[in-house]
Amino acid sequence: MKAILLNIGDELLSGRISDLNGPWLARWFFKQGIEFKKMALVPDSSEELKLAILEAWNDPTYDLIILSGGLGPTKDDITKSIIASAFNLKLNNSDQATALTRKHYSRIGKEWDPSINSYNIIPDEIIAVENLSGLAPGLVYVKQDKVLLAAPGVPREFSKMIETQLFSFISKKLKMTLKNKNQITIRTFGIPEEKLFSSLIPDLWKNLEKWGQVSSYPQTIGIDIVISFDATNEQKKIIEDEIKNYVSKSKLLPYIWQWGTLSLPELIVKKAKEKNIKIAFAESCTGGLTSSKITDVSGSSEIYMGSAITYSNESKVSLLGVQVETINKHGAVSLEVAKEMAEGALDQFDCDLTISYTGIAGPTGGSVEKPVGTVAIGIANKNKAHSKIFEMKGERLKLKNRFSEQGLLLLLSEIESY
Amino acid sequence: MKAILLNIGDELLSGRISDLNGPWLARWFFKQGIEFKKMALVPDSSEELKLAILEAWNDPTYDLIILSGGLGPTKDDITKSIIASAFNLKLNNSDQATALTRKHYSRIGKEWDPSINSYNIIPDEIIAVENLSGLAPGLVYVKQDKVLLAAPGVPREFSKMIETQLFSFISKKLKMTLKNKNQITIRTFGIPEEKLFSSLIPDLWKNLEKWGQVSSYPQTIGIDIVISFDATNEQKKIIEDEIKNYVSKSKLLPYIWQWGTLSLPELIVKKAKEKNIKIAFAESCTGGLTSSKITDVSGSSEIYMGSAITYSNESKVSLLGVQVETINKHGAVSLEVAKEMAEGALDQFDCDLTISYTGIAGPTGGSVEKPVGTVAIGIANKNKAHSKIFEMKGERLKLKNRFSEQGLLLLLSEIESY
Repeated sequence: MKAILLNIGDELLSGRISDLNGPWLARWFFKQGIEFKKMALVPDSSEELKLAILEAWNDPTYDLIILSGGLGPTKDDITKSIIASAFNLKLNNSDQATALTRKHYSRIGKEWDPSINSYNIIPDEIIAVENLSGLAPGLVYVKQDKVLLAAPGVPREFSKMIETQLFSFISKKLKMTLKNKNQITIRTFGIPEEKLFSSLIPDLWKNLEKWGQVSSYPQTIGIDIVISFDATNEQKKIIEDEIKNYVSKSKLLPYIWQWGTLSLPELIVKKAKEKNIKIAFAESCTGGLTSSKITDVSGSSEIYMGSAITYSNESKVSLLGVQVETINKHGAVSLEVAKEMAEGALDQFDCDLTISYTGIAGPTGGSVEKPVGTVAIGIANKNKAHSKIFEMKGERLKLKNRFSEQGLLLLLSEIESY
Repeated sequence: MKAILLNIGDELLSGRISDLNGPWLARWFFKQGIEFKKMALVPDSSEELKLAILEAWNDPTYDLIILSGGLGPTKDDITKSIIASAFNLKLNNSDQATALTRKHYSRIGKEWDPSINSYNIIPDEIIAVENLSGLAPGLVYVKQDKVLLAAPGVPREFSKMIETQLFSFISKKLKMTLKNKNQITIRTFGIPEEKLFSSLIPDLWKNLEKWGQVSSYPQTIGIDIVISFDATNEQKKIIEDEIKNYVSKSKLLPYIWQWGTLSLPELIVKKAKEKNIKIAFAESCTGGLTSSKITDVSGSSEIYMGSAITYSNESKVSLLGVQVETINKHGAVSLEVAKEMAEGALDQFDCDLTISYTGIAGPTGGSVEKPVGTVAIGIANKNKAHSKIFEMKGERLKLKNRFSEQGLLLLLSEIESY
């Protein structure tokens, strides 16, 4: 089954709001095995919308056409009349739409009547669709195995309507074409995309294509390789084993940090929970970013104790017990200070493992010996403390993020070998 | 001038990543006075991409066609060959592309040669475009007052290329249609969009329209009202004064936190620098997010000393000197603990002003008296400490952000009255 989304609204094309329905629908379609062929943002203007609807309807590529937006009560909500005009249908009172609208209003404790809006008036041959989290009904047009569904643009209403209502309008013939789509994700670090697929393993892409469609996605710390294929759960297991077997004998192995799609903070929280390892951070240049990332993960409070964000040198001394002489002798950005910061966090927080960051995120503060992009990362547990220095490239925010992820990568490896 | 964006990449249609270039381009086009007619996401498949390019090129609606993505070194980066095929152009080595590629690589201290990739091979009649923050050149095709620009999909590279390179390829005839667009931004807080334009000041929108096109943009803490108009700098000053005069006599005044477009952290850093006020935070539920936001601002180290991220109760006691009895009697999320946290941060850091957060970001941890979304925010300076409690709605990440912004808003007001 192949689908297109027409996203209606000037507020999307003026950059006022970002489209949330497209990305949501993309993920949902993928899970259902529906092929998402195209997504277009179209203005509220009637001519352009009509043209876009007719183009999609008459294009044999698409079985399923989703419209998002333009169903509300205001002047620029024109979807209904455009659908009527596109398919030469008359707008009329519909008992079915009236009943649904009454039902929607009664859910919020109000009585609907035709003076409030014209939700009851819809094009002939069109069916009103229940809106489980809003007031305006959706609209569906089914003809010759093609389905056009117009859903409200409000993301909560849009997703709920698609999830709960769409399949009841899809014909048996179309349903049979739905596939069971699977993905295997290999998350790597420390090697650029170019090198990965050329000098490291020139035929990696081609070899992986034996099992399915291959894609690569650059992330902050490395490249995600994704293999997509149609398979039953049983087949999936076999394919997964085959890929793992191939990869484990390849040069890719040392660059993999995860088979799966968890974020680095999610994986760290999961593994730390499994081993009951309590963690804390000492951050300078990353300014709390690492702490914020870990606390984005629900349940992190079980293993994350807290952090000292010591942006000034004085606070490195007073909060973390870094020696003034260490700072004076080696500088605030140094292996020695990073080590003392990690040790200080271990003292301050009731925890098993700490990481620390001290570096230069720029744009100012760099020098010849320690340019912008230099970061020292310390790691301490009850038995030992050590630190490493890295040089990275990028602007301030990118550097903060790269520093942060590099430290989390070291933390993950410490947790795994704990 | 009218434009279309073709956003290329299966990763967008599979929902693996969200499109950042479309929303950015929408805002940028708006500022330049370029009309954004349509945006489409198209798959990496060659047929569909070719069709989409030709449709846009042959449609008299569009003067400007922007492609995003598919310029990298891997097999699914097909933009170049599709452009060649769409316009019947041969792919050949280009000295101009070669020189640009060498320039890009030399910026990162590397020497490029043709074994690394084929960035030097581009379609005849196409010009390679400088990429100021990446390695792959863009491509531009100019014919009969139409411009097609293919830019890299990486958001940083995309926006930089559009900003710095696009206009040099736009013909005089097209440039004449560009307007000198000005914007005045009024940033408000504490009042929802519906109320602002209905019960508070029903004719606000209409009245502001005297000066230009009005838009409203909901943000985390409030609504931005933007008035856009064509004017010289001199005229702009007059219009700005007129709007300020009107607004200062309206009910809108107490809800305004800024005339301008700085973010809340940027404005705080600016004002704190002006008054030489040193700040520090104590964060629990926000988990370092506020610290990270402030340190996103370059130059924040002049006024930001650091933070104690005390996620566990033990660390609230050990790092911030919160009394165990206070926690036991009032709970960790309470006015009393928030106040002691702010006082504790004032003791720990060499600073003038602190804010603290303790709350419940969920999804677990809520109760009937203190539901998810409750946050207590403390403020302390050398003379006094106080705290306030708020209840907000949303999911975990949204709540973290709302808590954080609410505290920054209080901090701004403290700095302004310091």
